[in-house]
Amino acid sequence: MNEEKPGMKTLIAEASLALFEQRGFTETSVQDICNELGVTKGTFYYYFDSKETLLMDIHEQYIVTLLEEQKGILEDDNLTYREKVRAVIYMLIRDIEKRGARGRVFFREMRHLNDGRKAKIVPLRNQFRLNIEQLVRAGVEAGAFRSEINPKLAAFALLGIANWSYQWFHPDGELSDREVADAFATILLEGIEPDPRDR
Amino acid sequence: MNEEKPGMKTLIAEASLALFEQRGFTETSVQDICNELGVTKGTFYYYFDSKETLLMDIHEQYIVTLLEEQKGILEDDNLTYREKVRAVIYMLIRDIEKRGARGRVFFREMRHLNDGRKAKIVPLRNQFRLNIEQLVRAGVEAGAFRSEINPKLAAFALLGIANWSYQWFHPDGELSDREVADAFATILLEGIEPDPRDR
Repeated sequence: MNEEKPGMKTLIAEASLALFEQRGFTETSVQDICNELGVTKGTFYYYFDSKETLLMDIHEQYIVTLLEEQKGILEDDNLTYREKVRAVIYMLIRDIEKRGARGRVFFREMRHLNDGRKAKIVPLRNQFRLNIEQLVRAGVEAGAFRSEINPKLAAFALLGIANWSYQWFHPDGELSDREVADAFATILLEGIEPDPRDR
Repeated sequence: MNEEKPGMKTLIAEASLALFEQRGFTETSVQDICNELGVTKGTFYYYFDSKETLLMDIHEQYIVTLLEEQKGILEDDNLTYREKVRAVIYMLIRDIEKRGARGRVFFREMRHLNDGRKAKIVPLRNQFRLNIEQLVRAGVEAGAFRSEINPKLAAFALLGIANWSYQWFHPDGELSDREVADAFATILLEGIEPDPRDR
């Protein structure tokens, strides 16, 4: 039993995530989750106090993992500002296949967390954005990015481009995650207009 | 009565929209909508066959209005490609105060439309995106945008930046809609790196 328990908790979380994505959090009951796995409600409640606890677990794991990955990029002294921007975009798009359902459920169902739980998640979500803002600000100060750039809006632009791809990007489509991330990084860094020398 | 009927239909749609945004589509009953307005279910069903019909009405009105506005920009011969890109971004951000709830409900609750209704909405939503893609493609062909830009991804980038602002932009905040739209258009058009001549 000791070896099986961690596996079952993960199985419950994964089955729930799929149901939350397909049907929505409200439309999915604990019984639905149990039916999906062929387990009893007793098993569910052994691992999770409630459906809300499970949602909180899913959200927390999602954002904590993203923050850890982001930290690895931001603290890598071998990367330039430009390379860090590219790496953050790539990390967000790379794992859409694996993390897409998690991301979509995160953005859509967060309102179902109670205030206490939101108070724990929202600062983590904001931290991810503020770290990007700080990266852009440092880049502006170092002269790597243009001085008239508003770091706050540049961070929102980066997140908008990357997070929106959760709505449409299919890793088995015509473009790979690397191609999409590269194209987005180029648009964000260089814009879509020709080199000013050619204007 | 003749004069009141159109008003009541709009009142029902607006009250429902606010409830759908706050509580979610599933969590809002026809009775909740009627309670909010102090009307009977008979009044509701006089105007809408079902809650789903109402959601369809809200979605259709949202996307049809956006398409009409977009058409006005794209067909304006006085605007350059660059100005059209700016104008499309500005039209999406300008009306967030008025249209924000509609946009958030659109993106979050569309899955509650049945297949027949989705088949009517999805092509309209796609058309809005394809029109932007076509604008960028024409701009690339005319030399206004760089030849290596992928018009499809540039359209997704524009929509990502603009649609994501529905999640965070408050028109009464520190930045006006015009400032945000201008900053986003500049990032998209010119990127965040310095002029290549200075590199």
